[in-house]
Amino acid sequence: MRDVAIIGVGQTKVGEHWDISLRHLALEALQAAMTDAGVARADALYVGNMLSGALDGQEHLGALVADFAGLRGIEAFKVEAACGSGAAALRMGYVAVAGELADIVVVVGVEKMTDKLGPEATSALAMAADGDYEAAQGASFVALNALLMQRYMYEYGYSHQDFAPFAVNAHKNGVNNPYAMFRFPVTTERFAKAKMICTPVNLLDSSPICDGAAAVVLAPADVAHALSAAPVRVAASAVGTDALAVHDRRDPMVLDGAVVSTRRAYEQAGVGPQDIDLFELHDAFSIMAALSLEAAGFADKGQGLRVALDGEIGLEGRIPVTTMGGLKARGHPVGATGMYQVVEVVQQLRGLAGANQVQDARIGMAQNIGGSGATVVTHILERME
Amino acid sequence: MRDVAIIGVGQTKVGEHWDISLRHLALEALQAAMTDAGVARADALYVGNMLSGALDGQEHLGALVADFAGLRGIEAFKVEAACGSGAAALRMGYVAVAGELADIVVVVGVEKMTDKLGPEATSALAMAADGDYEAAQGASFVALNALLMQRYMYEYGYSHQDFAPFAVNAHKNGVNNPYAMFRFPVTTERFAKAKMICTPVNLLDSSPICDGAAAVVLAPADVAHALSAAPVRVAASAVGTDALAVHDRRDPMVLDGAVVSTRRAYEQAGVGPQDIDLFELHDAFSIMAALSLEAAGFADKGQGLRVALDGEIGLEGRIPVTTMGGLKARGHPVGATGMYQVVEVVQQLRGLAGANQVQDARIGMAQNIGGSGATVVTHILERME
Repeated sequence: MRDVAIIGVGQTKVGEHWDISLRHLALEALQAAMTDAGVARADALYVGNMLSGALDGQEHLGALVADFAGLRGIEAFKVEAACGSGAAALRMGYVAVAGELADIVVVVGVEKMTDKLGPEATSALAMAADGDYEAAQGASFVALNALLMQRYMYEYGYSHQDFAPFAVNAHKNGVNNPYAMFRFPVTTERFAKAKMICTPVNLLDSSPICDGAAAVVLAPADVAHALSAAPVRVAASAVGTDALAVHDRRDPMVLDGAVVSTRRAYEQAGVGPQDIDLFELHDAFSIMAALSLEAAGFADKGQGLRVALDGEIGLEGRIPVTTMGGLKARGHPVGATGMYQVVEVVQQLRGLAGANQVQDARIGMAQNIGGSGATVVTHILERME
Repeated sequence: MRDVAIIGVGQTKVGEHWDISLRHLALEALQAAMTDAGVARADALYVGNMLSGALDGQEHLGALVADFAGLRGIEAFKVEAACGSGAAALRMGYVAVAGELADIVVVVGVEKMTDKLGPEATSALAMAADGDYEAAQGASFVALNALLMQRYMYEYGYSHQDFAPFAVNAHKNGVNNPYAMFRFPVTTERFAKAKMICTPVNLLDSSPICDGAAAVVLAPADVAHALSAAPVRVAASAVGTDALAVHDRRDPMVLDGAVVSTRRAYEQAGVGPQDIDLFELHDAFSIMAALSLEAAGFADKGQGLRVALDGEIGLEGRIPVTTMGGLKARGHPVGATGMYQVVEVVQQLRGLAGANQVQDARIGMAQNIGGSGATVVTHILERME
């Protein structure tokens, strides 16, 4: 097993891309990443995507995107793990390069959701939950997160308004990200008045349905400097899983999949939470951000929200999160999200995050969650000197 | 990179399983494979599946099946490459074990199609083709194969009846496979009278819509003998891709994806067509069997059908194909098919194919095709002495 580096990144703006197709979105991100890396070929392509079948009537994205990107003939598959599909595809690419079965691998996460807004998108997203025991009972994705949020407030004595810092922080950072969907700040007052979606989850607790694609190019670390001016080492790539259905979990207030995934990542990288300079967590809903901070070791049980309330999640805080807007403000094109997170960590480690730069960022972590915690893929990235 | 072995296999009967769910199908095959291998745990699970979203309202099969199989917590993803999803998942498992990122990996291909027979299944399957340029124009999967078959007959001067040997051979072998969907022989006369589906593809040119699951357990080859009485070495695992749309191909009469995939597999295994004792090819339609024989080097261009007409595809022929019934008689639960093919090759190499045993089978090849040739995954398996 050898070290792996990211030698190029690319992304499209997140938004409602009604004028271009799924394959064009993927192409735009892929071409940007390959141009950034200065490579024209690859040994394999892995595509992270969840909903192309349900919302675009298209499966078989591996060969489709490979061909459209001028890579006809190479190994190419789609990897799916619900909203964790993007990082799952990266994990497969990492395995191929680390195991010396491929040298140059391109990975793209892509999702096009807004051609079918409304009930169809909600139904499609519910396929990330347990179809027989959750979705079929009417438990949509937002409903499951609402139950978790309600329970969190009850168990630990928080008010709904205590969740405001996650939205405020994400939107503040989104303003400076040209690829973000929402580039406006929100105040705690606006959070308090936001439209209720599914009590207690309001509009600003939620990430938007949207389109986008993000990509990276992987190479063996020992040739990364020869290929790239600013390579980033993949210090860890790890996965943990849990039951899909929330009611099957050991404790609904603990993301066991994230605990396992993060522990494996820390062990592989030889670091701990104190070494992480920024954490791109999976804030599909505010409650997921709180639970993620706890599962990753940045807060004790019930204290994840406290970290945010204490102002520690800002760019100059103890653990900056959603530094480019997160799922909430950058947007959450589900199968692409994990790749956006990784691209953003690379930007930070390269010192290219502009007004959102975390000072002296050396080690960053991206954590992509499928479902309400059933698949958790964690990557720790490190600046290569 | 190290050698990889299959130390256990399992499968469900192929058919219309209206009484059990997708997860139960997967479980049955997985448990059989893990019992066969004598292992109770695994480092990772990869699930090959194409249509669970469209036909079962369920994505996120990796974590779902892992949890249901008692493997909660392990790395688990779904891998999709249309009808090539099964072998694509195996390829990912192979990469993980060969690259030393995992020791014991379980792979299951599963598909449940018959809960929504008819137009829904046909529409869902069309997602394997190019949605914008084929499916949206009304070109269903059978229609695309009909065009290829018609062209083949025109180019090389065959009659439709010349394709009969593929169906006759597959059904003859299916009779003795307890896991096959269709266990009855068909005659050339019956083939001639079979209901026309989409001219010139008739019912006996086509594989059925059905349900099933098949699984294997992978381990490093150097410990395989300690774990299994009859391990089988994965001598090659290779992928080739092509354009999804048939009209985008270099030559519609050549499966370039299969040419590339097979060449890579032969190179990796250090063998050629003359060394292959049996070939589990992807006879989703008769025309695919003919084109596969050519692409894999068993016949010159336009001569694939001749191999069958000359009686060389039978159990005692030069190159036995579909030895346990193939897609036509065993059945084609699309995302599971690639795993059934591999399980059947293992049965042959272990000498456990019963009445269908290929004498002294030492090296077998399984080739799983996604779409009408856009993803081709080839595995060459070898008996370990």
